[in-house]
Amino acid sequence: MRTSAIIIIGKEIITGQTQDGNSFFIASHLTQWGINNKYIAAVDDNGKEIVDVFRYYLDKVDIVIVSGGLGPTFDDMTMEAVAVALNRRLYLDNEAFEHIKNFYEKLYKEGKIESDEMNEKRMKMAYLIEDCKPLKNSVGAAWGAYINMNNKHVFVLPGLPKEMKAMFLNEVEPILKPLGEELGVVKVYEFDINDESVLGGYIDEVMKKYDVYIKSLPVGFDSKTMKVRFTAYNKDINEGLKIIEQAKVYLDKLLNSKKHSLN
Amino acid sequence: MRTSAIIIIGKEIITGQTQDGNSFFIASHLTQWGINNKYIAAVDDNGKEIVDVFRYYLDKVDIVIVSGGLGPTFDDMTMEAVAVALNRRLYLDNEAFEHIKNFYEKLYKEGKIESDEMNEKRMKMAYLIEDCKPLKNSVGAAWGAYINMNNKHVFVLPGLPKEMKAMFLNEVEPILKPLGEELGVVKVYEFDINDESVLGGYIDEVMKKYDVYIKSLPVGFDSKTMKVRFTAYNKDINEGLKIIEQAKVYLDKLLNSKKHSLN
Repeated sequence: MRTSAIIIIGKEIITGQTQDGNSFFIASHLTQWGINNKYIAAVDDNGKEIVDVFRYYLDKVDIVIVSGGLGPTFDDMTMEAVAVALNRRLYLDNEAFEHIKNFYEKLYKEGKIESDEMNEKRMKMAYLIEDCKPLKNSVGAAWGAYINMNNKHVFVLPGLPKEMKAMFLNEVEPILKPLGEELGVVKVYEFDINDESVLGGYIDEVMKKYDVYIKSLPVGFDSKTMKVRFTAYNKDINEGLKIIEQAKVYLDKLLNSKKHSLN
Repeated sequence: MRTSAIIIIGKEIITGQTQDGNSFFIASHLTQWGINNKYIAAVDDNGKEIVDVFRYYLDKVDIVIVSGGLGPTFDDMTMEAVAVALNRRLYLDNEAFEHIKNFYEKLYKEGKIESDEMNEKRMKMAYLIEDCKPLKNSVGAAWGAYINMNNKHVFVLPGLPKEMKAMFLNEVEPILKPLGEELGVVKVYEFDINDESVLGGYIDEVMKKYDVYIKSLPVGFDSKTMKVRFTAYNKDINEGLKIIEQAKVYLDKLLNSKKHSLN
């Protein structure tokens, strides 16, 4: 399975002013597509720190997705930082330029802003990483970028959630989803026990005997039962289901004849 | 200002199964206390990866706070991983042992679990990092640890939110809050403009002239106004307020005589 890391840029995130929801959104999609997301990181709007953190994680995984810092203010430096990290330059993308120009012209005509002039700050957003595939922004101004470097894939996306999600689903999904792999079969069963410290020992035994990954999902001691998730990494769904069934039966047995699973 | 990093342990977080709320909670408290949180990271329940990520961030900051992976199952290896990262061993803490023993005995008497026996998995939670200050868990079983290494401070906390928050406020706050510094004065004003790409230029000019950090807080183009946050890093509150007032007046002036601030 290909591995990935998600990097969120923004002082408001690391200072706890804003709760990040982008990493959760991206991670759950990656997992659904069969991509193994290994890391999430958040870093300041600081060029040097973005470069350092980005390079650290790019070294570990196949795919890096960066979100945040593509806007017009001086704080927004992500596109440039990722370019530096990849030893590339920026170039003025004509389509992105036109998009941003039209974007502000439309807002100006709607009376929402006072000038439709392509000032320096607006133009900054049209500078993308050289040799990237530009990613269109269907909600806001700033375009993103996709860089394919043989075995590594890098995505640079906006931070504003609406813009990020639209770009992720419209532009990133067609590229990333095919890179995912069948996760296998997952089944969740409920058992008549609520104590991880006892259940854990039995789970260890089952995992020694069957090729499944078993995770207990505790909710607290006020519940008398606990859900347990079985995952079999088989491309053949029937094969996976068979192994999970065998593992579940064995766990039932270990939990002794007095207790019984609720399935 | 002392710097910090927050590391969240857990496969459920990196795979987007669960949204982490612990980093947001911890980061906002650190910021309120005047500690400069620079990084947030999430990593798998994997000893080697925890060691690598932990060392990477510990090298960059004064304070590292780790949350997650202190439970009884085989997935829970944080205490051991942080010990390895710090070149320390684990030791069996008697008070933690007694606490865990009493914790399960109480649940057993309440009929919530089936055995009060101190099995291997429960006992694992009583092994803490040598030469640490144990941090009591007032809600659950697993104790945390605080390691003070001259100029570096490391905290290892549980991942379950209720347990983490209680330990953070009861045990970590008395240690960390005194290490914080006065952040300075912060004031938020509202201006009659909603376009960051124009406002940004004026903000740059003001910041060249006055020692304040100015951040525009955009909400979107449907609003006709925008809030702008002014931060002055002065230990003297009156001095800070004076500088902010001067900066705000100058920004008003730049936004031209037709427009006026709403303050």
